[in-house]
Amino acid sequence: MSKRAPLRSDIAWSTPEAIGVHGYDLCNDLMGEVNFGDMAFLEVTGRLPNANESRMFNAILVTLVEHGIVPSTLAARMTYAGAPEAMQAAVAAGLLGLGSVFVGSTEGSARMLAAALPQPEGGPDEPPVPSLQELAQDIVQAHREQKKIIPGLGHPIHKPVDPRTLRLFAIAQQTGFHGLYVELMQCVADAASASYGKPLPINATGAIGALCCEMGLSWKVSHGLGVMARAVGLVGHVLEEARQPMAMELWHRTEEEATTHSRGHLRGKNA
Amino acid sequence: MSKRAPLRSDIAWSTPEAIGVHGYDLCNDLMGEVNFGDMAFLEVTGRLPNANESRMFNAILVTLVEHGIVPSTLAARMTYAGAPEAMQAAVAAGLLGLGSVFVGSTEGSARMLAAALPQPEGGPDEPPVPSLQELAQDIVQAHREQKKIIPGLGHPIHKPVDPRTLRLFAIAQQTGFHGLYVELMQCVADAASASYGKPLPINATGAIGALCCEMGLSWKVSHGLGVMARAVGLVGHVLEEARQPMAMELWHRTEEEATTHSRGHLRGKNA
Amino acid sequence: MSKRAPLRSDIAWSTPEAIGVHGYDLCNDLMGEVNFGDMAFLEVTGRLPNANESRMFNAILVTLVEHGIVPSTLAARMTYAGAPEAMQAAVAAGLLGLGSVFVGSTEGSARMLAAALPQPEGGPDEPPVPSLQELAQDIVQAHREQKKIIPGLGHPIHKPVDPRTLRLFAIAQQTGFHGLYVELMQCVADAASASYGKPLPINATGAIGALCCEMGLSWKVSHGLGVMARAVGLVGHVLEEARQPMAMELWHRTEEEATTHSRGHLRGKNA
Amino acid sequence: MSKRAPLRSDIAWSTPEAIGVHGYDLCNDLMGEVNFGDMAFLEVTGRLPNANESRMFNAILVTLVEHGIVPSTLAARMTYAGAPEAMQAAVAAGLLGLGSVFVGSTEGSARMLAAALPQPEGGPDEPPVPSLQELAQDIVQAHREQKKIIPGLGHPIHKPVDPRTLRLFAIAQQTGFHGLYVELMQCVADAASASYGKPLPINATGAIGALCCEMGLSWKVSHGLGVMARAVGLVGHVLEEARQPMAMELWHRTEEEATTHSRGHLRGKNA
Repeated sequence: MSKRAPLRSDIAWSTPEAIGVHGYDLCNDLMGEVNFGDMAFLEVTGRLPNANESRMFNAILVTLVEHGIVPSTLAARMTYAGAPEAMQAAVAAGLLGLGSVFVGSTEGSARMLAAALPQPEGGPDEPPVPSLQELAQDIVQAHREQKKIIPGLGHPIHKPVDPRTLRLFAIAQQTGFHGLYVELMQCVADAASASYGKPLPINATGAIGALCCEMGLSWKVSHGLGVMARAVGLVGHVLEEARQPMAMELWHRTEEEATTHSRGHLRGKNA
Repeated sequence: MSKRAPLRSDIAWSTPEAIGVHGYDLCNDLMGEVNFGDMAFLEVTGRLPNANESRMFNAILVTLVEHGIVPSTLAARMTYAGAPEAMQAAVAAGLLGLGSVFVGSTEGSARMLAAALPQPEGGPDEPPVPSLQELAQDIVQAHREQKKIIPGLGHPIHKPVDPRTLRLFAIAQQTGFHGLYVELMQCVADAASASYGKPLPINATGAIGALCCEMGLSWKVSHGLGVMARAVGLVGHVLEEARQPMAMELWHRTEEEATTHSRGHLRGKNA
Repeated sequence: MSKRAPLRSDIAWSTPEAIGVHGYDLCNDLMGEVNFGDMAFLEVTGRLPNANESRMFNAILVTLVEHGIVPSTLAARMTYAGAPEAMQAAVAAGLLGLGSVFVGSTEGSARMLAAALPQPEGGPDEPPVPSLQELAQDIVQAHREQKKIIPGLGHPIHKPVDPRTLRLFAIAQQTGFHGLYVELMQCVADAASASYGKPLPINATGAIGALCCEMGLSWKVSHGLGVMARAVGLVGHVLEEARQPMAMELWHRTEEEATTHSRGHLRGKNA
Repeated sequence: MSKRAPLRSDIAWSTPEAIGVHGYDLCNDLMGEVNFGDMAFLEVTGRLPNANESRMFNAILVTLVEHGIVPSTLAARMTYAGAPEAMQAAVAAGLLGLGSVFVGSTEGSARMLAAALPQPEGGPDEPPVPSLQELAQDIVQAHREQKKIIPGLGHPIHKPVDPRTLRLFAIAQQTGFHGLYVELMQCVADAASASYGKPLPINATGAIGALCCEMGLSWKVSHGLGVMARAVGLVGHVLEEARQPMAMELWHRTEEEATTHSRGHLRGKNA
């Protein structure tokens, strides 16, 4: 193979006696010293969190782990039913549905907020000109004109408020992450509610999108947080499927309802 | 659809005001209260860990997150190069390689130890009859007769000892999880080293298999821990690939080396 | 990177003017000249089929494409509902369930038959000693002793015979592939039916396992045929889900039935 | 589960004696009667092709099966190296990379052409007003203004022309599919070459995008064709990896090159 460009990774190395991860000694700096959430913070930022960052970041991940019976957990259970010898494949099947429809709104709200209020080095600390209210009006108007849904607002079940949003913003107050992005997201919710004439409160994905901006995490990272947290939840669902299955029953019921109307109908030369 | 059996899941529920996860109030009992590793413990056991369980379990997960450039991280990077709009698919592709060759040995050692020393309710607390040494001899002999590799022993790089094993067992001493399964695994390593005439120390997967037994976690759970931890590490690699890519260069080099010998060679009617 | 072993692939090459695939000129020998099934034969064997091979092989693939609403198609539909922008991920999710439970029996029967009756160069043409009946008795007895299911026999719906088996064996008669492996599989079905005291006819996967042996295709190839054929069927289901969805409705129904019993039940400190 | 909407699938049904697929009797109308490509046509359109459609459609699928060593085949090989017991997972991993970067351009060119020249019932047969040249100018100008790449043009290796395009269009002439969409695609290539001042010929994905429009297949179907065809090719690569592996060697080389620079460097408290 002719070398055209070097291959380089700065994440980890191994020698016979030690393993380095983002510059830390895995055995002595990390194992037994930091929790799984801090390790995740290290993976996505390249450094360990301080105490406030650790509390906020762990709270975000904890929020995203479990959503009960949803399409992605059903995909994982269906896959486990066919290939119980490969649990990793069932978890992977569940992750594959974390696209634009469900998890995409975290990423979407993080992108929307960061585009409206660019992050200076060290984070924004002065109220922007124009005001947050004006920025929010522009965001709502732009989405209405393009007939796009504003990411991070409204929820089919959690009305009139999403209890996770309240809790996340309370933790943000305690940890110093309740800043301009959270305020801007609130202004967007207010402007959207007024514009559409119905309550459109901030949902959990909108709150997390805003908090990722507060923590200096890019929208790409925000999507990654959903993926890693849901992997944990999917393991839980696959383990439940193994001891208390529902996939086979659901399959049989669905097959019967969906295809009985057509049984025996033929149109080919043997019809 | 005719109902034949009820569908039931006991993991989570939602009402407008609250979300329950394994019987806990997500917003008030979990978010901001427990770390991501404790949440993972809840997902796989249905209860929250005590302080010792939390430290041991988080240490195990932290150990499993990152292994640097390995086949699964390369599969994730190759997938990201083709579908950067779907980060979840790149992580899923990486998870799919966590099968029998690499991660399987955690599961394998947990199964081996639990089969030799069944877990009574509350865990074994008396030394077994026959002795651990005799059980270990039987294990080694059975694997030799069936020409099977003993899972959890030896490592191509970490010689003469795996530093992660030392650290995990030290944490196990501090947290009360250094019991009969850890001792049995050590006896297996000693017996195997004697039988094969070369040092075969316990590697990290063997140590984790033994510790899962100590904590009352089944082999299925032990595999799940590898899957969830590696999902975190794979997010890290996908993010690095996004900012510092290697997949395209690796592809071009490989294509050139692997196929140059055949270019222009034809055997069909147009040869 | 230090080279330890050469990287080599003999499948395909490209130059500015031409593309070679398994030694054939893609544009002039294959495109417009061979059908998709013959191209698949080329991929798995490295050569093009003759007319009889083409008819038998295409018939096997056609048999495996579509199975209606089954767990793998439901996994694909659930994934599409969450990530409609990534159809390839929905198809991949469906493939992941093609493991030991469903598709594994093709591979299993091919392995079973090839182990009992090894394939000489050019294929077996003399009846074996001991007789096919004796080999079949041994197979049934070995599976009963190990409490294993004999792969390729019986079907929950297609009774007393699987119509696909009849058709496949008729095509095998016409194309010269109705040989000793098909006869051995029939002897296994007879011996199993006698031993278990109930009709256990050859199902489609058993027939295909036998026919793969007749065609000199390994059990690994037989699994691959299921995977590629189902990829075609999964595309069909994803396209139907796009125009006539069922995933969201199925999700909502399942969530309601599976979790209503637990709503509002808490045991944590906030219970 | 409370029913809100019916679940319905019109693809397939089973009774004890027969299986229907898109209204055809699987055993008697399809097995042994149609080839794998025609079966794929049935899956995506709901009907069997006529002779011209069969030739054109099979040629398109044959074109898409094999691309040699590319990121998706490397992802499949890396996955197989870790989980050789689950070939379906290796194929799935390969499919996951068929996103916007590589396969997306087929879909993109089909969308672009269909948007410019809407398909009336029965297909367009009159030259449009404005002319194809004017439509092509508008397409090129719109892409330049939005700084978007025009899908389906140019190729890094196949210069000055893509031999697959020539062959596909020749088959289109023979089968009656060389119509307005092919002409429009050619006009786009001419206008783009003039606008950018360099040759930008139609590549294989652009040709297939145009031919999908000619055949009345939607852009969603065009993506599906790439997915199903590559599944066949990926099976071929996984089988080669099983008999002639490259993944492990590639891993070791890459790990060494990419991480040697950092070995032993620590910054934590143990640095």
